[in-house]
Amino acid sequence: MKVRVTVMLKEGVLDPQGKAIGHALHTLGFPGVEAVRVGKIIDLDLKSTDAQAARAEAEKMASELLANLVIEDFTVEVLG
Amino acid sequence: MKVRVTVMLKEGVLDPQGKAIGHALHTLGFPGVEAVRVGKIIDLDLKSTDAQAARAEAEKMASELLANLVIEDFTVEVLG
Repeated sequence: MKVRVTVMLKEGVLDPQGKAIGHALHTLGFPGVEAVRVGKIIDLDLKSTDAQAARAEAEKMASELLANLVIEDFTVEVLG
Repeated sequence: MKVRVTVMLKEGVLDPQGKAIGHALHTLGFPGVEAVRVGKIIDLDLKSTDAQAARAEAEKMASELLANLVIEDFTVEVLG
């Protein structure tokens, strides 16, 4: 199964990379940008052929390893 | 409008970061991982209140600045 884990900084956590991109976009001719937040995608190919098992496995990986739950939230989406 | 730009390496482009994560997951007790690909999310808050205009603006930003089209593909999704 293909599973997509999306990791974003929690609301309220400062995102200097997003700030830098926002600033660059302003400078480079996009004044309509109000805020930018940056996140990560981790696409996993799992051996498991069961959607529920794949989701559970990906959630375990995300909470234990892929996301830092102090400052980040994650979502898991089974792509099929 | 909130718009999400997703940037992934094109098929066939080597992804050393994904390989490293895959290796780490194996080592750390997840043998069911066959492949890992890593990507970026850029969430934009745009002043524009028109979904179509916001999408067009985000596509311009992505193709000009946020993605390197030689090695990366992007998708744009209007979140509302």
